[in-house]
Parts: sequence; structure tokens; C-alpha cells
Amino acid sequence: MTGDDPHSEDTATGRRMPSFGRRGFLGVAGVAGAGLVVGGAAGGAAGGAAGYSAASSESPDTAHATEPFYGTHQAGIVTYQQNSLVFAAFDVKDAVTTAQLQALLARWAAAASLLAVGKPVGPVTTRSGAPPADTGEAFDLGAHRLTVTVGFGTTLFDDRFGLSDKMPAALRPLGQLAVDTSIDPTISGGDLCVQACSEDPQVAFHAIRNFARIGRNVVTLRWLQEGFGRASATTNSQTTPRNLMGFKDGTANIKAEDPKVADAQVWVGDETDQAWMKGGSYLVTRKIRMHIEAWDSDDITDQQQIFGRYKDSGAPLTGEAEFDTLDFAKKAGDGATVINRFSHIRLAHPDNNGGAQILRRGYNYTDGIDTRTGTLAAGLFFIAFQKNAHEQFARIQNSLAQDRLNEYITPISSSLFAIPPGLSKIGDWYGKTMFGYQS
Amino acid sequence: MTGDDPHSEDTATGRRMPSFGRRGFLGVAGVAGAGLVVGGAAGGAAGGAAGYSAASSESPDTAHATEPFYGTHQAGIVTYQQNSLVFAAFDVKDAVTTAQLQALLARWAAAASLLAVGKPVGPVTTRSGAPPADTGEAFDLGAHRLTVTVGFGTTLFDDRFGLSDKMPAALRPLGQLAVDTSIDPTISGGDLCVQACSEDPQVAFHAIRNFARIGRNVVTLRWLQEGFGRASATTNSQTTPRNLMGFKDGTANIKAEDPKVADAQVWVGDETDQAWMKGGSYLVTRKIRMHIEAWDSDDITDQQQIFGRYKDSGAPLTGEAEFDTLDFAKKAGDGATVINRFSHIRLAHPDNNGGAQILRRGYNYTDGIDTRTGTLAAGLFFIAFQKNAHEQFARIQNSLAQDRLNEYITPISSSLFAIPPGLSKIGDWYGKTMFGYQS
Repeated sequence: MTGDDPHSEDTATGRRMPSFGRRGFLGVAGVAGAGLVVGGAAGGAAGGAAGYSAASSESPDTAHATEPFYGTHQAGIVTYQQNSLVFAAFDVKDAVTTAQLQALLARWAAAASLLAVGKPVGPVTTRSGAPPADTGEAFDLGAHRLTVTVGFGTTLFDDRFGLSDKMPAALRPLGQLAVDTSIDPTISGGDLCVQACSEDPQVAFHAIRNFARIGRNVVTLRWLQEGFGRASATTNSQTTPRNLMGFKDGTANIKAEDPKVADAQVWVGDETDQAWMKGGSYLVTRKIRMHIEAWDSDDITDQQQIFGRYKDSGAPLTGEAEFDTLDFAKKAGDGATVINRFSHIRLAHPDNNGGAQILRRGYNYTDGIDTRTGTLAAGLFFIAFQKNAHEQFARIQNSLAQDRLNEYITPISSSLFAIPPGLSKIGDWYGKTMFGYQS
Repeated sequence: MTGDDPHSEDTATGRRMPSFGRRGFLGVAGVAGAGLVVGGAAGGAAGGAAGYSAASSESPDTAHATEPFYGTHQAGIVTYQQNSLVFAAFDVKDAVTTAQLQALLARWAAAASLLAVGKPVGPVTTRSGAPPADTGEAFDLGAHRLTVTVGFGTTLFDDRFGLSDKMPAALRPLGQLAVDTSIDPTISGGDLCVQACSEDPQVAFHAIRNFARIGRNVVTLRWLQEGFGRASATTNSQTTPRNLMGFKDGTANIKAEDPKVADAQVWVGDETDQAWMKGGSYLVTRKIRMHIEAWDSDDITDQQQIFGRYKDSGAPLTGEAEFDTLDFAKKAGDGATVINRFSHIRLAHPDNNGGAQILRRGYNYTDGIDTRTGTLAAGLFFIAFQKNAHEQFARIQNSLAQDRLNEYITPISSSLFAIPPGLSKIGDWYGKTMFGYQS
């Protein structure tokens, strides 16, 4: 595997390299090649940025804008949400050794550090006649704020890799939730996951495609999902986008710029039973097919009752503006509450779920049409990060079992992944401390 | 059908409407409702813009930038290519009358004229309790240079609608081309097509989704394709993008800003046997699945020989820079030509195809993974516009039957549509003269 290591040639000075952002490129580390000492790139200093977008050096519109790679937490979680997603789940192949898996996680770390600064993972051309070490389709595009976030599924923690005593209790399967009658296991779960987000969809695709290429002897692609527009706002400076039902959704969800909020809701802390997860998070993905045609036939009054918000402004039915406080007690002339007790905003609200909150980071998607029915195969690829999905996402989702919205949506995939903490410096790799190495 | 007409309420002065670009909004025409007199919007004057992007009033990066809607030609052809595509094909339902089809084409025209200026196709909320006339997911997004382009398939020209003597000879089926061993008819063809392009994918999706909603009693969705990044350059001011093989492709294709070139290659002229097609064009779509993993294993020398270009710069193998003149005669030391005679650039070149050229306007796509093989289901959704596809696209494609690239690609859908000319003013609609009405 060392023969095609992406760092085997120095690409930093190549004459045809694209220019990089002001964040700069501090040099490509040589690769030891043997064992697990794989060099990273993109600046040796961890900094205190910890993946917060506030630390991003450039305007989000700039092709060469970058997000910090090294830090306490992985990027792509509290990062100001980008507009495009490509998400992949992988399974480790049969007969792969622990050392081979570790080497892959190290190579992925090195690749991610290069992609984060808009560099290819290796030369797109070689003089050796070998296949190029980077597939090239993002060669001149810039990073466009690419983040790559790597996670581990429950199935990784078995006897194959000596990890059975390393599985966090919080990673136990969520099980079949009340609405989970149509989950397709072939597009759920997986040993490993990789979330790539960027302002340019081709940059996100390129990251996933090269992770698959780098891993081709170790992992197989289990499923892949593209998301074409952000369906969440992760910071107060982003407007709440609309889902494919035309509603602003997630207005009341937490925003990420306040570290206190993130520490309380998103980042794993001292409560964990597995020290290696501290500074990490838990990722839930749900592919939620919307029954677009049925929804489009529903009248506006009913649509607004189902969400509990006005469709145009996003204001709660008890308010005038999107962020007005919800008044669940307010009654209409007929004595019923203005916000229906089975409305989405009421059932999802923290007051109704023991204070549980999540950081939503989902994307709208379309898969074309459902050929059985000629209807649009489209909806929401829901993504949520949290400290503990059993106590946060699952609690809220159980409450949503009563949601009238369920008439118009069907979850068709469901996954839970443990997201390890960020990489602190060159030489660090995904899961290093989980495997018992010093950070 | 008149009950949910998108123009039944004036939305121009609604207090919550998004702001529009400097192009401005000149007023919403009232709708007669009965018969075929359907009002349009977006300014009554046709102008001389004819769909050329040079006439666009604003920077392409601006959310509220718009493309001219009325003109000699439909927009979305010579328009500076946008970054996102959603393309749909529809079939007319059984027992639909000619008048119903005509009414749909008129409603689509009215809707397209509104979408082109960033307006919804009707109110996103109503006080009537009816379903909203616009689905809302693009409510606050702006037009992002949306263009909607409507076309007719061969199957429309049958006895159902009295069009059998209106079919242009150039719309006869292309038939099975040499490489067409895996065409899936369920994702090919269709009675009608709609191409939506925008800088924002959600705006493009919204257009197609609302066309489907408006047409729900008249047409069914046959197939739908999303494209996530432009794979062509339609003007000299755009850089040539890379396909998913990592190569700049289409460098030598025609650019659209020179009206003489467009008249010679793209727009149907006096040579047509059907006067209603004058000012129109012919659209070929080909979904070309790339065998990504096999390609990524091929060595760089072979990859470059197959394309005939250097991977990084896009320069021909006989040159230094992308746009250097190709030298097909130049020989290497071994006596063989530097550019292989079976290379893509040589076989596709006009000199090899009796001067045939096309306006390429394709997009990269991914459908996730091929679950049979665990490989990436991704490639190029090829789009080409031309005066006559039999003399242009098909001639080039027949030459490409020898292309060594065919080892790494498989066309899985193939379609030909007649694109009628542009709408000249409010009250005009797609196919109006084809059906024998005065323009």
C-alpha cells in the first residue's frame, strides 16, 4: 500500500498547481511510509479554532476559502453549513487486518488535510506511467470551504479489529423507532462514514471519490447520498432555508457559534465511558422521502397547522416573525390551541422532550423519480450531531411519532455513527487513540 | 383547470415577496382563464436579447440575476451555462385532449416567465384554504439566472394531437448508434422535456417540481436527472470545466456568443421543412455512465492518449496550452502520430466529421452507487444543441464508435427533442404556431 501513497511526491511546488487561499500552505510532510506514521499537511499548528467557522480566513463565497482542519473537534459539524453534500458509508472488506484498517484511516487523514486547503491528494499527473494519485476533477476548483468528517459505525466494534471493548455505550443501535416501518438496510449504517461538505458540489464529490479510491483494497462503498441544498442553518448569520415542503424548518434548533451551547449539546464530554470519544460527537442520518405530490395537494391551512408555522414568513402561528417565541398555550376562538398539539414545532420543541436539542445539518435531495409510481423521489437527508443520540435525537423522534407530518414523509434510511474528536497535529489520524496509540 | 391557475391572484405587491433584481418586474398580466389566452409576465417587451447572456443585467454570482425570457430563441441554450441542472421528461396521459395539452403548454409558458424573474408561479399562501399555487421551496432564493427550456419528443407527433403532419424530418429518431448496447428506454425519450438550469440547484428543482405540479392532470413524469456541476463552457469567458475523468473536455466545441456561429450550428433556419421550428434547435441528451474505478486504475499515459490532451493543463499532446491548435500529423520518435488516431479529440474534431459541430451544455452527475457492484454510479449527462442532430451529433457520435474512451463509458439513456423557438411576447406559448395559431 505504500507504493501509491498520496504523499510520495511533493506537489507543493508543481508549476501547474492552482493558487491557494490566504490561509496558505505550510508544506507537505514527507511520509515515513512504514507503519502508522503518516504525514499530514495544511499547517502544523493546531490553533484554537476547533472547527468553528468564525476562524475561517475568507469569505464563504470565495473559491479558495478554507475551513480549519486541525483542532479539538472535526470540521463539518459546527462549521457554517455549506451548500453541497456528498455522504458515503463504507464497509471494511473481509480479511482486512487491523493494521490495514489503521493505515487507511491514516491515509484518509493525510488526504483530508490536503483537500481542506484545496490541494489534490497527490499529483494528478505522474511521469511514472502509474495511475494518477488524484483523480483530477477538482484540480482547479479551490477548496470552496470543503470539510471532510469521518465516523465509525457500531459494526466496526467487533472482534475483527480488537475494538469490542472500545465501543461507547452511546453508539449502541437506536433500534426500530416508531416511524421506522420502511428503513432499507442497504442504504443504512456501515462500518465507516465520510461526510464531505463544500460550497461546490464537485469538490465534495471529488473528496468522497478519492477516499473510495484510496480505500479500494480495504473498504467497499456501502451507500452514497448527494444533497443539493442546505436544509439547516448552523449559525445565527445564516437564514433558515426551506425544505422541499416549502417551509422554513429547524428555526428553533441550536446554532453552533456559542461554544457553551455546543459543549452542552454537541460535543462528547467527561460523561463518556470511552475516553477516546471526548471532543467527538454522534451523528444521526435519516433519509426522509417526502410524498411531494400528496403534500402539494394539501391545503395551506392544513400545511401550516402541521408545521405550526406560516409558510411564507416562517413565523409561528402565534407570532409575526420567524424567531418570535412560541406560545403553545395560546387559544383560538374555538378553544383549541392556535399551535396544534400534534404540530411539528410543538412535538419537536425541547420543552416537550426534557430539554433535548440537536444540531441539525441536513440537505435536500432528489434521486430522480420513483419508477413504480412516476412520483418525485425527493426529500430531506436529515443530519444531526449531538452528545448522545439516545438522549437527544431518539427522544425527539419518539415524540415526533405523533407528528401529523408523518402522513407525508417516510424515513427510508437511518444510521448512527460515532464521530471521533479532531486531529490535533500532523501525524494524528482518525481513531488513533481508540486503537490505543498516544495522540 | 382554471381553478388553480397560477395567475389567479396578483402576487406582485405581496408584503412578503422577495426583492427582485434590477431587471425589474413590469407587472403580472391578468389571466383570461378560458381557452388559450393565458397571460405571461416578466415584462412585455421582447427586446432583442434572444436568450444571449450578454444581455443579462447582473453579475452571474448575484442571487437575483436574471436571464431574458422573451426573445427569438428560448433561453438555456446559448445562455452562459449555469452550474446546476434539473432535467425532466414527461409523457402526456391517456385521453388528454389537444386543448388540454395546449392549455398546459400555455400555463408552463406563464409559469416560466414568472420563474425567470425570481417570482413564484403563484402565491405560496392563500386565504382560500386551497393548496398553495407555488410549492414555496424557492420563495426567498432569487432567480439565480434560472432558465427553463421546453421541447417536444417524436412521440408527441402522432394522431393524438393532430400533429402528424407537423413533425420535422430532423426529429426522426436517431436509432441505435454503434455504442448503444445498454440504452434504458425508461430513462430515454418522452413526449415533452423541460430543462431547468440555475446557479442554485434548489431553484432548478423548484421549477421542474412546479411544472410537474401544474401538469399533474395532463402529464406524468417519465424520468428526471439532476446535474451537479457544469461539464461544458458555452462562452469564451468560462473556463473549460473538468468531467469526472478529471479531464477538460469540449475545449474545441463551439462557443455561443458569436451569433454567426450560433446561426450556422445551433439555430434552425430556412432549411427546415417545418416553419414553426425556425429559430428553434434540436436537443440531444445522453446519460453516459463512467466506469470510474476502472478509469482510476488506468495509467496517466494511457488516459492522456485516450483523450489526446494533457490531464492537468488540458493542452493537446501536440501543444503547451489548452487552446493551442491541434496537430494531428505531428509524429513522435517511433513514427506514430503524437495524437493517437483513436483519441477522443481527433475522432470528435470537425475535420474528421465533415465540419460537424455541436453546442455542448452537459453536466456531471451522480446517482449514488450501483448496488450490484458497489461502484460509483456517476458520469456525464451530455447535452448538445444543434441545427440538425442527424447531421451533427450523430455524425460525430458515429465517428466516436472507434473511441478508446468507450472502454470506460457506457451510454445508458439517449433522447432527441425538438426545441421550438422563443416566446416573443405575453400571450405566446410553447408550440403555438405548431398548432396553427398566429404567433
